[in-house]
Amino acid sequence: MTRLSLQDAQDLASAALIRNGAAAPVAQSVAGALVRAEADGFKGHGLGRLPSYIAQLRAGKVNASANIRPSRPRPGALLVDADHGFAYPALDLAVGELPDMARAQGIACAAIARSHHCGAAGLFVEALARQGLIALLFANTPAAMAPWGGNRAVLGTNPIAFACPRSAEDPIVIDMALSKVARGNIAAAARRGEVIPSDWAFDSNGQPTTDAKRALQGTMAPLGDAKGIALALMVELLAAGMTGSNYAAEASSFLDAEGTPPGTGQFLIAIDPLAFSPGTPDRFAVLAQAIEGQEGARLPGARRFAMRAEAERRGIMVNGDLLNEIAAL
Amino acid sequence: MTRLSLQDAQDLASAALIRNGAAAPVAQSVAGALVRAEADGFKGHGLGRLPSYIAQLRAGKVNASANIRPSRPRPGALLVDADHGFAYPALDLAVGELPDMARAQGIACAAIARSHHCGAAGLFVEALARQGLIALLFANTPAAMAPWGGNRAVLGTNPIAFACPRSAEDPIVIDMALSKVARGNIAAAARRGEVIPSDWAFDSNGQPTTDAKRALQGTMAPLGDAKGIALALMVELLAAGMTGSNYAAEASSFLDAEGTPPGTGQFLIAIDPLAFSPGTPDRFAVLAQAIEGQEGARLPGARRFAMRAEAERRGIMVNGDLLNEIAAL
Repeated sequence: MTRLSLQDAQDLASAALIRNGAAAPVAQSVAGALVRAEADGFKGHGLGRLPSYIAQLRAGKVNASANIRPSRPRPGALLVDADHGFAYPALDLAVGELPDMARAQGIACAAIARSHHCGAAGLFVEALARQGLIALLFANTPAAMAPWGGNRAVLGTNPIAFACPRSAEDPIVIDMALSKVARGNIAAAARRGEVIPSDWAFDSNGQPTTDAKRALQGTMAPLGDAKGIALALMVELLAAGMTGSNYAAEASSFLDAEGTPPGTGQFLIAIDPLAFSPGTPDRFAVLAQAIEGQEGARLPGARRFAMRAEAERRGIMVNGDLLNEIAAL
Repeated sequence: MTRLSLQDAQDLASAALIRNGAAAPVAQSVAGALVRAEADGFKGHGLGRLPSYIAQLRAGKVNASANIRPSRPRPGALLVDADHGFAYPALDLAVGELPDMARAQGIACAAIARSHHCGAAGLFVEALARQGLIALLFANTPAAMAPWGGNRAVLGTNPIAFACPRSAEDPIVIDMALSKVARGNIAAAARRGEVIPSDWAFDSNGQPTTDAKRALQGTMAPLGDAKGIALALMVELLAAGMTGSNYAAEASSFLDAEGTPPGTGQFLIAIDPLAFSPGTPDRFAVLAQAIEGQEGARLPGARRFAMRAEAERRGIMVNGDLLNEIAAL
């Protein structure tokens, strides 16, 4: 493991993207999102993604010359065509436009079409909350979950992210995939030849399984059974149906360079709490205190901010093989 | 059990409300919501609520002369002060205003403040979907759930409802409380002296319990563990924090006539899918078919529409004691 400052990590990732055809602003945006995810403790959306991102750039599965086109079909609605490039520059554009729209209209939304992996979704709602807005993000992902009672995966693990400003404190940030556990946990058990708990996944017949290899050929279990699947359907309709993007079952993998672009979507909502009362952020703080004041409880987002502060002070630890691989890309 | 037509049930409930001080339009709205919930199979939000609603009217816990005041602080934002009356007339007002706002702005929201029990939340998002809109509803309820790791209830069971139009078919309607099971299941087990599964509730020390009586003194378990609690926090911030209403821990019971009005809130979002593409409703239908086409799977909302069709044909079965009680109110 090698310790890197966040700036060095950002420069390293950005340079590798530029060497492989990304324009400098795109490389900055992508590298920034990966390094921030890494700093916040979301390694699954961190620098480890870079080799596969670059393979997808080289293969044309990510469009290196994507022309991100925003349009404003209604006063409160922004449509961003990501043109099969990376998701991050399109998300950054939406996060830049939404605050003025939301303040003027009270609420505004951004539909991001023909997009890609959005990584640590909490980063984008946090950025909006730091401008005083309540924000929601819905993203769909390649097929992983079946409808409740069915056995064919037509829904992604479909993250929901939410952030809420507090007066004078870090925002409350919620960011969750709707599967019970991350697929990486099942893949790891399969590699080690271990069994998995019976409530993590289903086999290809839709039956619960403790066999990690059969689980990988089947579907992921949602959080909260049928209710979690209903939430995943809601996200699929908002993030893909509403935006004109590919549904989970139409999308190729985010992880390899095979096939056509995944073309998934994201849907963002930003609301100005000051539209309803000037005292709203103080009220948000009241509920936050009622949670933080309980022994053993913590506010969603607290862990990420603690890890980020540590990473800003001391840098991040990156696997040496990964560093060599990035340098060689 | 007595069979009643939906119209007879509506007239009976409405008359009882009027006899106890409700204005005729308020009585129509409340009776309509209770009868539709009953017809759709949500008996917990049906006619059985009427005796407690009327007790609250008589005690002044529900304001019989509520002056529902709408205002429009921003082009996309409606604020409705329910003035501690019933929630339904305020929700009906929002459902009436939101479609034009959402079509003009692309997205619009309604904050309902100082409100009460919103019953079967799916009814209100369904009404918006039948006008071609995607709709979300968030409602907070009196305290029932603790933060993850804590033991004091500061969050309600906080329903989320969602509806999405389909071209030429009934909408997709999702409606879920965020507790793992309804509190009524635990109360029933306590009455029968039965144990409950260990994942339904916590005792007052925050420990999982199979003792139904101790569970009633403790807190409800969320769906999906920590993720479900994070969703309940999100709903609390949107439905109460944003609207200027009481948080769960500040709200009195929806079920009895004791104390001050609960003063909880609801937050609605309506989005015009035609803002992004004229073909969006057809795309919604594509995903619906991918679910309906799977053996054993069903689309959320399908059951309620089947039950409603049956109730419209054959009426509803109402407990005789309840009917006598309503007639005597």
